[in-house]
Amino acid sequence: MNSKASQDKPWGGRFSEPTDRFVEAFTASVDFDRRLYRHDIEGSMAHARMLARVGVLTDAECRQILEGLELVRAEIESGDFDWSVSLEDVHMNVEARLTQRIGDVGKKLHTGRSRNDQVATDIRLYLREAIDDLMAELRRLQRGLLDLAEREAATVMPGFTHLQTAQPVTFGHHMMAWFEMLERDHARLGDCRRRVNVLPLGSAALAGTPYPLDRHYTAELLGFDAVSDNSLDAVSDRDFAIEFCAAGALIMTHLSRFSEELVLWASAQFGFVDLPDRFCTGSSIMPQKKNPDVPELVRGKTGRVNGNLVSLLTLMKAQPLAYNKDNQEDKEPLFDTVDTLAGSLRAFADMVPHIQVRAAAMEEATRKGFATATDLADYLVRKGMAFRDAHEVVGRAVRHGLETGRDLGEMELEELRRFSTTIEADVFDVLTLQGSLAARNVHGGTAPDQVRARIQEARARIGTG
Amino acid sequence: MNSKASQDKPWGGRFSEPTDRFVEAFTASVDFDRRLYRHDIEGSMAHARMLARVGVLTDAECRQILEGLELVRAEIESGDFDWSVSLEDVHMNVEARLTQRIGDVGKKLHTGRSRNDQVATDIRLYLREAIDDLMAELRRLQRGLLDLAEREAATVMPGFTHLQTAQPVTFGHHMMAWFEMLERDHARLGDCRRRVNVLPLGSAALAGTPYPLDRHYTAELLGFDAVSDNSLDAVSDRDFAIEFCAAGALIMTHLSRFSEELVLWASAQFGFVDLPDRFCTGSSIMPQKKNPDVPELVRGKTGRVNGNLVSLLTLMKAQPLAYNKDNQEDKEPLFDTVDTLAGSLRAFADMVPHIQVRAAAMEEATRKGFATATDLADYLVRKGMAFRDAHEVVGRAVRHGLETGRDLGEMELEELRRFSTTIEADVFDVLTLQGSLAARNVHGGTAPDQVRARIQEARARIGTG
Amino acid sequence: MNSKASQDKPWGGRFSEPTDRFVEAFTASVDFDRRLYRHDIEGSMAHARMLARVGVLTDAECRQILEGLELVRAEIESGDFDWSVSLEDVHMNVEARLTQRIGDVGKKLHTGRSRNDQVATDIRLYLREAIDDLMAELRRLQRGLLDLAEREAATVMPGFTHLQTAQPVTFGHHMMAWFEMLERDHARLGDCRRRVNVLPLGSAALAGTPYPLDRHYTAELLGFDAVSDNSLDAVSDRDFAIEFCAAGALIMTHLSRFSEELVLWASAQFGFVDLPDRFCTGSSIMPQKKNPDVPELVRGKTGRVNGNLVSLLTLMKAQPLAYNKDNQEDKEPLFDTVDTLAGSLRAFADMVPHIQVRAAAMEEATRKGFATATDLADYLVRKGMAFRDAHEVVGRAVRHGLETGRDLGEMELEELRRFSTTIEADVFDVLTLQGSLAARNVHGGTAPDQVRARIQEARARIGTG
Amino acid sequence: MNSKASQDKPWGGRFSEPTDRFVEAFTASVDFDRRLYRHDIEGSMAHARMLARVGVLTDAECRQILEGLELVRAEIESGDFDWSVSLEDVHMNVEARLTQRIGDVGKKLHTGRSRNDQVATDIRLYLREAIDDLMAELRRLQRGLLDLAEREAATVMPGFTHLQTAQPVTFGHHMMAWFEMLERDHARLGDCRRRVNVLPLGSAALAGTPYPLDRHYTAELLGFDAVSDNSLDAVSDRDFAIEFCAAGALIMTHLSRFSEELVLWASAQFGFVDLPDRFCTGSSIMPQKKNPDVPELVRGKTGRVNGNLVSLLTLMKAQPLAYNKDNQEDKEPLFDTVDTLAGSLRAFADMVPHIQVRAAAMEEATRKGFATATDLADYLVRKGMAFRDAHEVVGRAVRHGLETGRDLGEMELEELRRFSTTIEADVFDVLTLQGSLAARNVHGGTAPDQVRARIQEARARIGTG
Repeated sequence: MNSKASQDKPWGGRFSEPTDRFVEAFTASVDFDRRLYRHDIEGSMAHARMLARVGVLTDAECRQILEGLELVRAEIESGDFDWSVSLEDVHMNVEARLTQRIGDVGKKLHTGRSRNDQVATDIRLYLREAIDDLMAELRRLQRGLLDLAEREAATVMPGFTHLQTAQPVTFGHHMMAWFEMLERDHARLGDCRRRVNVLPLGSAALAGTPYPLDRHYTAELLGFDAVSDNSLDAVSDRDFAIEFCAAGALIMTHLSRFSEELVLWASAQFGFVDLPDRFCTGSSIMPQKKNPDVPELVRGKTGRVNGNLVSLLTLMKAQPLAYNKDNQEDKEPLFDTVDTLAGSLRAFADMVPHIQVRAAAMEEATRKGFATATDLADYLVRKGMAFRDAHEVVGRAVRHGLETGRDLGEMELEELRRFSTTIEADVFDVLTLQGSLAARNVHGGTAPDQVRARIQEARARIGTG
Repeated sequence: MNSKASQDKPWGGRFSEPTDRFVEAFTASVDFDRRLYRHDIEGSMAHARMLARVGVLTDAECRQILEGLELVRAEIESGDFDWSVSLEDVHMNVEARLTQRIGDVGKKLHTGRSRNDQVATDIRLYLREAIDDLMAELRRLQRGLLDLAEREAATVMPGFTHLQTAQPVTFGHHMMAWFEMLERDHARLGDCRRRVNVLPLGSAALAGTPYPLDRHYTAELLGFDAVSDNSLDAVSDRDFAIEFCAAGALIMTHLSRFSEELVLWASAQFGFVDLPDRFCTGSSIMPQKKNPDVPELVRGKTGRVNGNLVSLLTLMKAQPLAYNKDNQEDKEPLFDTVDTLAGSLRAFADMVPHIQVRAAAMEEATRKGFATATDLADYLVRKGMAFRDAHEVVGRAVRHGLETGRDLGEMELEELRRFSTTIEADVFDVLTLQGSLAARNVHGGTAPDQVRARIQEARARIGTG
Repeated sequence: MNSKASQDKPWGGRFSEPTDRFVEAFTASVDFDRRLYRHDIEGSMAHARMLARVGVLTDAECRQILEGLELVRAEIESGDFDWSVSLEDVHMNVEARLTQRIGDVGKKLHTGRSRNDQVATDIRLYLREAIDDLMAELRRLQRGLLDLAEREAATVMPGFTHLQTAQPVTFGHHMMAWFEMLERDHARLGDCRRRVNVLPLGSAALAGTPYPLDRHYTAELLGFDAVSDNSLDAVSDRDFAIEFCAAGALIMTHLSRFSEELVLWASAQFGFVDLPDRFCTGSSIMPQKKNPDVPELVRGKTGRVNGNLVSLLTLMKAQPLAYNKDNQEDKEPLFDTVDTLAGSLRAFADMVPHIQVRAAAMEEATRKGFATATDLADYLVRKGMAFRDAHEVVGRAVRHGLETGRDLGEMELEELRRFSTTIEADVFDVLTLQGSLAARNVHGGTAPDQVRARIQEARARIGTG
Repeated sequence: MNSKASQDKPWGGRFSEPTDRFVEAFTASVDFDRRLYRHDIEGSMAHARMLARVGVLTDAECRQILEGLELVRAEIESGDFDWSVSLEDVHMNVEARLTQRIGDVGKKLHTGRSRNDQVATDIRLYLREAIDDLMAELRRLQRGLLDLAEREAATVMPGFTHLQTAQPVTFGHHMMAWFEMLERDHARLGDCRRRVNVLPLGSAALAGTPYPLDRHYTAELLGFDAVSDNSLDAVSDRDFAIEFCAAGALIMTHLSRFSEELVLWASAQFGFVDLPDRFCTGSSIMPQKKNPDVPELVRGKTGRVNGNLVSLLTLMKAQPLAYNKDNQEDKEPLFDTVDTLAGSLRAFADMVPHIQVRAAAMEEATRKGFATATDLADYLVRKGMAFRDAHEVVGRAVRHGLETGRDLGEMELEELRRFSTTIEADVFDVLTLQGSLAARNVHGGTAPDQVRARIQEARARIGTG
């Protein structure tokens, strides 16, 4: 990389002293914003076409510029492009190279725009594409969950609250909980996309431009739903990026909970699932280890996405309008959030269909732990006892079970009747796991029929995309 | 407040030792969740009605419960209610009092529900109402901005980038930037509301319930758009609360930028606006001070809303399903966010219509600072010069101006022609502020006609609500 | 509470319009800063004594003020004090009441100070006391850990990495890990205290004061180690509060990890410990539940302390000097952090000595899971094999064990020798749990002798205070 | 980069399926942890020397390893090293290459250690060095501030509270406020360094090691002050990294406030300072702009450091002991914090000595704004009036001044006496700026003599290092 004096910079005219070399590197963004080259060129092409349409460029000039931009793009993609820190950012690097290739007509491309509206456009094009990719990957993961849920729609496992055995649920029902979380995440990304997909180009530095731009035509060329309505707002706000990072933080929060459970379930103590070897790694010192690396790492990556969100919120706090240099710091947290989400979702979408369920271990765990205690209480209520009273009866029966080392279903009828004479022989119907599951047949409940109905609805909802 | 042993608690039966008194206070939530009493009672009434409809309660029982709940509500609202820490939370306080008032039939209210789905319902009812109030307050503030923007649609002020004078804009245009930010905030709250407005009741503790509940009827009674599709998800996720806090953080980020500018503008150095005395306070030691307390305080309150968001994201990270006691910590950050937003929006909605603009000071500031330098560059481009070359010409002219202490409009024609002979007598048309403003007549630009058009569209968009 | 016009405020003279009633409540701090009354009065007393010493007050005036302040303090502590929102904050409430009680001499107390240095002094006095209390509570919790560690110094349990069984450790060794974390937390609070314990009083509003104050005398009276060296810094920075919140966030991070493990260990799947009933609660719907509420709640409270830290960092970001109204927002996050730490440490210090260890379950869990695989590798190394090669041998043996359902210690010698003929009969010495533990006798290792040695050193380090 | 199957990995023996290629890249850390190569090799050399000393290695083996490690270091530094993602991390890359170079003896280096204690050691070595560099850079910036403060010790400027002119201060006094903030930052880094500088090596995977390591000797070789006392703690806690990031967040908070003021002061409206051209950049569209890029960018970078802190706190929350894969995420936030601090401090240390002060503009600003109003109040108090009464008198005089457009010093004596007959001719002594400054001669006050005394003390304190 070369480092020229500020005389060679686009704004060099006014300055009496070259930029300090360290300062130049410190304030340059090209090391990370070069990732936007494709969107920068796409935006420039649309801008050139629009300039030609409104007569600011001739058709020949426009053609030259479009061909030149194609050349620059090809150079970048072949790895031959010589990025210059001295040219500060992706925009100046592309434009300088364009002018080298096609001569002074290249300088006309910047007519009626500024780096302020140019970068705002690039980020929106980039983020729109990223959102589309992430929404597709969410769907892939959701389909994996639906398949797994369907396979295990009736497989019993202990449902926990406070990590204490609470009531029997099915493994399929549990998978569908994660499906629902991701469904809301998908919707949030879609909502965010609508606010992203608005064209800022034409706002120029901050006030609009005297050139007779046709912003709606540029928007049409670039697939934007609308043009921004206020130039100050368009160049200075980044709320759409923060909204995206907040939606991303929720995705990672959901994946972290998913991960936590997979780590627990893969432990020797739970033993509920087996993860495929290829999503695990071993230990350099302990040969017996099979570590659930992917869920652990995804759980850890929650931190960086929360951090990125805080980073952007801190960045924007109390900034006066319009564009300030501070905003250069908007890109790395955004890029890192996109990358983290893409990698984490891909890893989960790849892994989920291959989770192996240990049904026997889960059933055994459910049998222990008084999981049907609520069913006994509900039984008593149906026999006419008030719920709070039934709760107390069962509480005493459980305490007896703890002291004698037996589950409720393992007690004799007479033993149970010590706690309430309302209990009769039919109590043992409700103390079975299958009976307990089937009874919870309310909409959204864990009864296998309910679970299957929800899966069918979900399939219809998300399509086969 | 009284503090009974755990024998008297709803779950006392199983325990051999009373709750430690400090632990009881440490783990109780009634001090803050009592705020939910109205929504708790509303939810209970709908639950009772539904239980009667499906035959779990008789009509007479239902009536008793509804009357009893009304009595409890009246007691709370009159201030006579004796809140008990020993009863842990608002739900148990209300239910215990209900049973005191109407006898054992009160205990039947809890049939087919758990505190887990009950509290999830209460929070959603509470938050839905809060969102509606905040959306209305946002609209009020937006209307104030529209009025102010219309009044000052043509009032010139310096537009800044990097807090350096950049180009002339109008005060009305600047107000409309804030309007647009708040418009997106309004839409975000609306999107969030859709995800909030889903009924969890019927999910019971985590798995659904064996009672034949009609969840859609309950949803209808309570105005919910839908019922939740998965009981595990319904009792354990709080993503809707986090989404709300993220939307709130963006509102406060916008208000913090608004505040920053008001503080700057109210300073002696800027002197662009006067804030009404009643939104300011004085100093105990410096009698001359008139401090812009309201914007300063709102700027500071950004911190607590960002903090609340982090608090909830940290809270939920890696929690296994379903409900854990950790989730008790979801309420205070949510309540504080609602309160902070309500207070800050109210203060701004009250204050904005009374901002006094010092037009002369703003025009004077715009005249200094080479605000029409871009106009000169654009003039040169229209005369055929490439933009980048024009930029350099103007840069040299500005440097000359800095050295001689004069703005571009104050130089002689011959002086200007030293930098480019393309400059002719008509240059002075573009070096006036009004000319510069009027020229930026692109959609979203600062030309007064544009500003007025956007205001009219905005009025149509938000209605007169 | 009464609400007077701003004419009655300390700064009313300059204003032409009374404060809006909502604005008055919105900007007042007395609802939360009244907590500082004791420190405010303590600071005022020292200020009065110093003023008398340098001759600004007569001895009689000083005596009157001291007596008056005592009266005000007594009123507050008896609950009879009538706090006024119109008087904004604790400082004005106390001073106004003082003047009501002792007449105009009360007004002289404010000579040579401002609310800016007064509140900075109050917060430092408050925080110093809070730190002392928290450091004492940390010590109490550490002593509980030492006792428990000593009791279980040789009790075997599985050591985990990636929540997979790794190697045997002792329960005492595990307790000492938490002890060490808290030891660093204690040191951090001590370091923070040194930076808190500096007197800002005498900085006045921002520039110092023309009165001949003896700041070192005030510092001596209040137990401050030093006086602040720059008045602008003294009234406007709150870094000491942020440093405290960061130290608090680390304490809660440590307690959250401690909590996570207690929740895991108290689950049916692990079954490693029993928590006393009085630190747990039950379920309103599932009578068998014994939920580890205290660790869950403490784990959840990590969120609010992280949030408070972010709140303060956001608050201070980019504030120009000196005092701004924003800083009123510094108190609630600080107070909440202190309260959360105090409650969480107290709950843990109360609970830890009563944790019941299920030694048999832990030993059983250790026997399964190939916990001595590393010992076999080390055995091979001692016989001359390179570590990486030994690792591969053991890896194959473990795979064989997984396939045949047996731990390494359960295989025949010949079976083991299939993987390496270096293995001989003495291998079974290292495959016992006690042998494995005793072998790790390096400083800081898990050998019971090591654990006991560290406990003795720790007791000496922290004393019996 | 090549990507081998897991059979070639250090832990491949137990696994039946090669690592998925995407998973391999997703879970590898070598792309960012290669930065630790120097510290990794330094730690390995000390470990080898210690192993030789205790007889685990022969002297010849040790020599071979040391020479081999030197070769690897040279390869890396020459850029010839072929980093392999398949080898996961810097540790395995270095060790694999060592074994390639020196044969099987290279495998013995890992005796008695694990990647868990190895990486903990590397991070501590890295961070200790980073802290030393940052402390030196802080000192350089502080010296620049001292020189600037001394030069401008008596230069008057308006002191602000609420961004309203409050009282005259000196520019030197203001610089010393920043000096003091950085002084505490320096102390915090020093405190953190003590907790960083503890050797974890010898803790092995989690439980210590059966090899007779001499950890104190390793510590001595590596310059550690102490060895860790608990192996579980040593491999799993990262509190020292979080403490460092919190200290870093405070440094950036201070720099953000410094930056905010420089941006304000460099605006046309304030015009208090000129920043050297080389720390500024221009605009691609507005030729007249001279943007204070360095302070703006540093202000923006506050966001990423706060974000990194949140990232690490989120990461560690509720992780069970001992090492989990999540912890791989500890490095990037730490590295980024170090880089951001290093760049920001360097830029400020370079820039501060060259800040040009516009003394006339600052004096003019001070003359306006009733900056001596407090002095009038103090004058009245010295004449016997109670402070609160004096405050009201001055308030009325200021209101009169606002209405008539004159500062207090510009009124006639008779005019002033309308507000209080206590005012006499000597009042004009205190209404001059120099008189006001000189009067604030309390320790830490703004009187030029005070400022110079503090500068001298500060020079003595920090030395000339």
